[in-house]
Amino acid sequence: MPGMRKKRSDKTGLPPGSLVHIGDETSRAVNMSVIDYREDYFHEETIDSLEKCVSLKNPDFVTWINIEGIHQTATLEKLGQCYGFHPLVLEDIMATDQRPKLEDFGDYLFIVLKMIRYNDRNGGLDIEQVSLILGRNYLISFQEGKEGDVFNPLRERLRTGKGRVRQMGADYLAYGLMDSIIDNYYLAIDRLGEEIEAVEERLVNNPVPETLRKIHKLRRDIIFLRKSIWPLREVIGGLERLESPLFAKTTSIYLKDIYDHILRVIDTIETYRDMLAVMLDVYLSSINNRLNAVMKVLTVIATIFMPLTFIAGVYGMNFKYIPGLEWEWSFPVFMLAMTLLTIGMLLLFKRKKWL
Amino acid sequence: MPGMRKKRSDKTGLPPGSLVHIGDETSRAVNMSVIDYREDYFHEETIDSLEKCVSLKNPDFVTWINIEGIHQTATLEKLGQCYGFHPLVLEDIMATDQRPKLEDFGDYLFIVLKMIRYNDRNGGLDIEQVSLILGRNYLISFQEGKEGDVFNPLRERLRTGKGRVRQMGADYLAYGLMDSIIDNYYLAIDRLGEEIEAVEERLVNNPVPETLRKIHKLRRDIIFLRKSIWPLREVIGGLERLESPLFAKTTSIYLKDIYDHILRVIDTIETYRDMLAVMLDVYLSSINNRLNAVMKVLTVIATIFMPLTFIAGVYGMNFKYIPGLEWEWSFPVFMLAMTLLTIGMLLLFKRKKWL
Amino acid sequence: MPGMRKKRSDKTGLPPGSLVHIGDETSRAVNMSVIDYREDYFHEETIDSLEKCVSLKNPDFVTWINIEGIHQTATLEKLGQCYGFHPLVLEDIMATDQRPKLEDFGDYLFIVLKMIRYNDRNGGLDIEQVSLILGRNYLISFQEGKEGDVFNPLRERLRTGKGRVRQMGADYLAYGLMDSIIDNYYLAIDRLGEEIEAVEERLVNNPVPETLRKIHKLRRDIIFLRKSIWPLREVIGGLERLESPLFAKTTSIYLKDIYDHILRVIDTIETYRDMLAVMLDVYLSSINNRLNAVMKVLTVIATIFMPLTFIAGVYGMNFKYIPGLEWEWSFPVFMLAMTLLTIGMLLLFKRKKWL
Amino acid sequence: MPGMRKKRSDKTGLPPGSLVHIGDETSRAVNMSVIDYREDYFHEETIDSLEKCVSLKNPDFVTWINIEGIHQTATLEKLGQCYGFHPLVLEDIMATDQRPKLEDFGDYLFIVLKMIRYNDRNGGLDIEQVSLILGRNYLISFQEGKEGDVFNPLRERLRTGKGRVRQMGADYLAYGLMDSIIDNYYLAIDRLGEEIEAVEERLVNNPVPETLRKIHKLRRDIIFLRKSIWPLREVIGGLERLESPLFAKTTSIYLKDIYDHILRVIDTIETYRDMLAVMLDVYLSSINNRLNAVMKVLTVIATIFMPLTFIAGVYGMNFKYIPGLEWEWSFPVFMLAMTLLTIGMLLLFKRKKWL
Amino acid sequence: MPGMRKKRSDKTGLPPGSLVHIGDETSRAVNMSVIDYREDYFHEETIDSLEKCVSLKNPDFVTWINIEGIHQTATLEKLGQCYGFHPLVLEDIMATDQRPKLEDFGDYLFIVLKMIRYNDRNGGLDIEQVSLILGRNYLISFQEGKEGDVFNPLRERLRTGKGRVRQMGADYLAYGLMDSIIDNYYLAIDRLGEEIEAVEERLVNNPVPETLRKIHKLRRDIIFLRKSIWPLREVIGGLERLESPLFAKTTSIYLKDIYDHILRVIDTIETYRDMLAVMLDVYLSSINNRLNAVMKVLTVIATIFMPLTFIAGVYGMNFKYIPGLEWEWSFPVFMLAMTLLTIGMLLLFKRKKWL
Repeated sequence: MPGMRKKRSDKTGLPPGSLVHIGDETSRAVNMSVIDYREDYFHEETIDSLEKCVSLKNPDFVTWINIEGIHQTATLEKLGQCYGFHPLVLEDIMATDQRPKLEDFGDYLFIVLKMIRYNDRNGGLDIEQVSLILGRNYLISFQEGKEGDVFNPLRERLRTGKGRVRQMGADYLAYGLMDSIIDNYYLAIDRLGEEIEAVEERLVNNPVPETLRKIHKLRRDIIFLRKSIWPLREVIGGLERLESPLFAKTTSIYLKDIYDHILRVIDTIETYRDMLAVMLDVYLSSINNRLNAVMKVLTVIATIFMPLTFIAGVYGMNFKYIPGLEWEWSFPVFMLAMTLLTIGMLLLFKRKKWL
Repeated sequence: MPGMRKKRSDKTGLPPGSLVHIGDETSRAVNMSVIDYREDYFHEETIDSLEKCVSLKNPDFVTWINIEGIHQTATLEKLGQCYGFHPLVLEDIMATDQRPKLEDFGDYLFIVLKMIRYNDRNGGLDIEQVSLILGRNYLISFQEGKEGDVFNPLRERLRTGKGRVRQMGADYLAYGLMDSIIDNYYLAIDRLGEEIEAVEERLVNNPVPETLRKIHKLRRDIIFLRKSIWPLREVIGGLERLESPLFAKTTSIYLKDIYDHILRVIDTIETYRDMLAVMLDVYLSSINNRLNAVMKVLTVIATIFMPLTFIAGVYGMNFKYIPGLEWEWSFPVFMLAMTLLTIGMLLLFKRKKWL
Repeated sequence: MPGMRKKRSDKTGLPPGSLVHIGDETSRAVNMSVIDYREDYFHEETIDSLEKCVSLKNPDFVTWINIEGIHQTATLEKLGQCYGFHPLVLEDIMATDQRPKLEDFGDYLFIVLKMIRYNDRNGGLDIEQVSLILGRNYLISFQEGKEGDVFNPLRERLRTGKGRVRQMGADYLAYGLMDSIIDNYYLAIDRLGEEIEAVEERLVNNPVPETLRKIHKLRRDIIFLRKSIWPLREVIGGLERLESPLFAKTTSIYLKDIYDHILRVIDTIETYRDMLAVMLDVYLSSINNRLNAVMKVLTVIATIFMPLTFIAGVYGMNFKYIPGLEWEWSFPVFMLAMTLLTIGMLLLFKRKKWL
Repeated sequence: MPGMRKKRSDKTGLPPGSLVHIGDETSRAVNMSVIDYREDYFHEETIDSLEKCVSLKNPDFVTWINIEGIHQTATLEKLGQCYGFHPLVLEDIMATDQRPKLEDFGDYLFIVLKMIRYNDRNGGLDIEQVSLILGRNYLISFQEGKEGDVFNPLRERLRTGKGRVRQMGADYLAYGLMDSIIDNYYLAIDRLGEEIEAVEERLVNNPVPETLRKIHKLRRDIIFLRKSIWPLREVIGGLERLESPLFAKTTSIYLKDIYDHILRVIDTIETYRDMLAVMLDVYLSSINNRLNAVMKVLTVIATIFMPLTFIAGVYGMNFKYIPGLEWEWSFPVFMLAMTLLTIGMLLLFKRKKWL
Repeated sequence: MPGMRKKRSDKTGLPPGSLVHIGDETSRAVNMSVIDYREDYFHEETIDSLEKCVSLKNPDFVTWINIEGIHQTATLEKLGQCYGFHPLVLEDIMATDQRPKLEDFGDYLFIVLKMIRYNDRNGGLDIEQVSLILGRNYLISFQEGKEGDVFNPLRERLRTGKGRVRQMGADYLAYGLMDSIIDNYYLAIDRLGEEIEAVEERLVNNPVPETLRKIHKLRRDIIFLRKSIWPLREVIGGLERLESPLFAKTTSIYLKDIYDHILRVIDTIETYRDMLAVMLDVYLSSINNRLNAVMKVLTVIATIFMPLTFIAGVYGMNFKYIPGLEWEWSFPVFMLAMTLLTIGMLLLFKRKKWL
């Protein structure tokens, strides 16, 4: 139901920094998990509410707070009180119509990006906003709280201590989350690619209205994908160039890697966009080809039978004197003449390549 | 009536700085309100005319003069005399065909932007020009004086002292006005989005000329919206970079926020533009699909009945000797043959996927 | 007659700096007027020829020489001798296919721009080249000498001493001329806008070939307008940034004003361009809509009458035994059946929304 | 014969600096001319082969070697030996698929550009590559050796000593050659312009397939022209900015002039490109307009005669009792009714604007 | 089988630096060859596996290791151990969906580019990824291991000592490989060019659905080619500007040469793209032209025979009194009238240019 979705325009007139949830309304509970880790330590906890502030100040280990569900104003307000985030940051977290962006507040970085998943049920794309607040030794991540996320492999690596992540700081964790999100773009992209190929096969040979509907739907998907991913290029590029103590130089090569991934995703999106534009043009031409074929059939039929019918009509006239009416062989001769005329016309059409 | 609208071209030949109203002609009175405030003080007044200059020099509080109606040359001239604004500024205020812009005159900043509202009566967009003159402790805002404005929530916050606005300077007030205006863009944008979706649903299945008219109208709206909003990006970006004592650095983060809003609005406009371009192409293909379907019906009908009619015509000829005329079972056999021929053709068309 | 127009290609092979007139050939006489003025002095003179050089060296007042007609090589050569202008400048003045440009020769600035007028007789655009040479206290302007110009209001202000122009230098006069020219663009733009609106109204409802011709003509106009005006942006922008003693800093705010005007004109041209592109697409769809409507009528007629004609043909066959031929009520029953069949088909088409 | 043209791909696998001719194969002899000149001296010589190196080291005069025909590897190798040019330069000279470019080798500049001529025989464009090597007091120019060149007027000026060219250095000579080449672009451009206008006139009124073929051919020409001329902008711009002692500052104003010419040529090409894109769209609409007109005729004919034929068929049925068959006035009444029906339908179509 | 191709999305969830092969699955063995050379020395060896590390540290000669086949994780891991390459580099080598790129790791440069070959069997393009690791005196190249490569001429030059390559360092070898790859682009480009020309010839005269399929296929090829080649421009440009001791300044002029080649290839691709876009539009117009021609035939036939059939039907009616039925000359007069009517109509259509 579209009425269930809160829009940006519902917020018109409120003062800046007002905490209003923009997005799909939900009554689900908010899930919060806190993970503390260092190379030789790991602790995971699920908490129900932010009654008291989770301490982030222990410089000995990295703390990752993951919050699923951003529709409760109270949670966000509490967070703001605990750690002193700027009201505009809290406002942006709750509004799920942000474009991907990066903001440097000195003590912490604020990053917004989009999690994209292909929805198998309706063949569309699910877009979910993820906000990250990265401090010296903590990371707070906010999800809209839709079912499932893409961070499980990373959590598993944290728990088991595999890979580099436990040895490194909060900035590497932030990188890990962004990498997981961007890796998942490929899933969506590949699915779209398969759909495009499926449509392409039927494009010239069998252009039905369903094909058109599919092309249109795919172009819409690509338009929205583009809107969600393009600005990310600037975000990751900005992180690379950022002169912030929060992002260690050693993490920079990893940023370069995901920057590269983003470029590749954007390349593919642009390629699909081009291909779909061409496909729409080809579709139109195919349809007109079909129309041409249909009209040729009609014209051939009419061109053969209209003269025949006329001649039959002539011999059906009630004139008293029509030559041949009385002749015994009239009918066979007439039928033969008609047959020859028909064959002659068919040959003519053959030569004109209409058949 | 288009004749009632004064155009830029009516002004050709006048010297620069000439005060001529460009826009819808009106005989409405000019409304002026003066608000003085500081953290612990608020005074609001409605004045009829600018007979004597309102003092702006009291550095103790912020003065906001809001003028609705810019069609009277006298008002503007008086203002120019009172506060020494540059003639070109006054000229620009009266000409409602400005593009959004920012000009720095040292003592004051001159900002032009557009207020956009969706008109429910005719389903179009109302665009109204708002000019702001921001001095050290005063702000003068000019509206065209069309019914209603978008500043009421802000006025209420000033009156009640809620929010930050009473504690801050004229620059924050200017930000507040711009924020109100830009927030209202979302209303217009969302309405256009709804209309686009409504059109989209009927696009492939039921493409009527009305659909085409709607797409055309929406593209016009988007073109005009774009023209009004694009330059705003530069204006707000320019304000952010501005090295002016008139804009405190603490207000800068708020400017970043509305810059972000503008980017989002522009993103959405571009997305709609893309979608409408695709929709026009899809519409054309849909129409041709329909044409194809119509032509198939015609061809099927003609292909079945033309041969039948010819054969009936043959047996209607007045030849003396036509085999079978005398035979008792001729008619049923004829009818059966015709029926079989028809069924055969229908099957053929079925296999060719024409039916 | 196209043969009457001299082209750039007629000049191929001549050495650089050759004075050859490129443009409409004419035998009209060259009109020259010399105006000297300062705040308290004004003198105007019409001269026939440049037999002796007009003195420009008197630093007490500003001298404006306006030359209408650039087709006489002798005049330009004399000018070159008198004041030592670069041969390439003289060559450019005589060639009316220049793009708007600005060149700084130290002692003088050379500016080329285009005067555009809407021609009421043929509904097209007249484009005339205006060249300006601006020295320390003089301005020489060159027009092609077509009937009428746009400088009369400015001349009047010089004569009567109204406005600022008599108090200021040659740079302000140059600004004044450019302002007059750019102001006149609005006239042409507004006329095109009216034509576009007129076409737009008939676009979807009544798309006739005349509409197509009109759209095509308007797009051509816009293409040429664009070519004449786009480079002006750079010219005025270049003047603003110019570090030349010939252009006083106080004139700079006026340049900003016409820069703004140029931006607005370009915005409008781009908007019209977009609109016309959309209109062409809409036109094509409208035409196909019409075609669809026509084909539906044909198909309905054929679908109703082809079966009827066949059935009538059946009862017109000369078989000896056709059931019902002898029955007294055959004809009324037949007519009734035909009528019912027709009504049934009409209802079917109604339901398919073909009628 | 396409097989006669050597392609870049024939060269695949050879080491860099390999001298292989890419272009139309020819067995013509190579023409070489050597011109020595200074203000008071002129000597011209045609030489057959480069058996011994032509001395270029005499700083007293400027030497211009013009070589027509670049298909002989020996000539180029000899040149390389004589003057020590880089192998890549020699390779580039022989490969006629270069894009216009400028390379600075310190001792000499290497410039590639395209000579374009309109071919009257086939209405196409001939593109010939010209390479220039400009040293301190010499210029070597290479042409493909196609019939005729555009340098004759310049040679004449050198011989007669008219114009500035004899008084200036090799850089001015290089400018002169480039100016000649660019001047000739106008000839090609003007011819295309005429063809475009010729097509435009028949576009809406009489769109035949020939028109489409013409538009397509012109767009191809424009695409190739663009490819040959666009990069020249950078080349000339690069020459202007070049900090090389080989190009005197006094020649710089002349470079500005041809830079201007290039801009104008590019402007015109872009304008033509726009116009042809519009024309293709207009053509499609015109074709559909015609189709519409044809279909209206068909529909009118069918709508009038199908009912008439049916009614005639009804009275041709062999029912025993059909009212009116026996009545004496049946036939005239029938004919009158048919005529009235036809007139009524024609009026209806008239009102629908189909006729 | 598309299932046989591993995709990027199969890798989702793995930690960064995971070695997973992305590309066509194969069970072929990996081929490795090691070439050591200096000006007076050459040694070539084929090795089966990287059991022990090949020594690269001998600064006396240049070592080139060429590895064909990147699907075995073990090989890459061994390499990483031997020479300490960054895990992300190894990951990128195994993933064949990279965009061309250049990365500077200080000790070595990592370059990715695409080898493109025209596949004669299916008329498509084969794209194979080539990765280069360039160290001080070694070069390691990785190919996907598809049949054949483009380096044989270079190997031959190394073996025989022809050309410059044996006298220069590893950087020149890297240049040589890149040059070979880029040279081969021309083969693919030229083949596409031939196909485009073949399609173009039949475009206006004989537009069959096959033509459309061909255009579509070519545009797809161009889109993919573009995606593979565009980023190369930046890569080569980046190498030119690179401040790395690994690339000698003397090699820089050769880089400039292949940069130039890349520009030319891109120019050609853009030209083909433009041409194909135009061709698609022209195709649509051609199809509609044909439709027009078909409809004219139908309309001519219908317009001639419908009235004739009606008139014959009239004289076939069973009215008792129809004038002329009894007259002896009725039939010849009727036939004459019909013939004249037909001729008249044909003349009318001729004048309307329908025939």
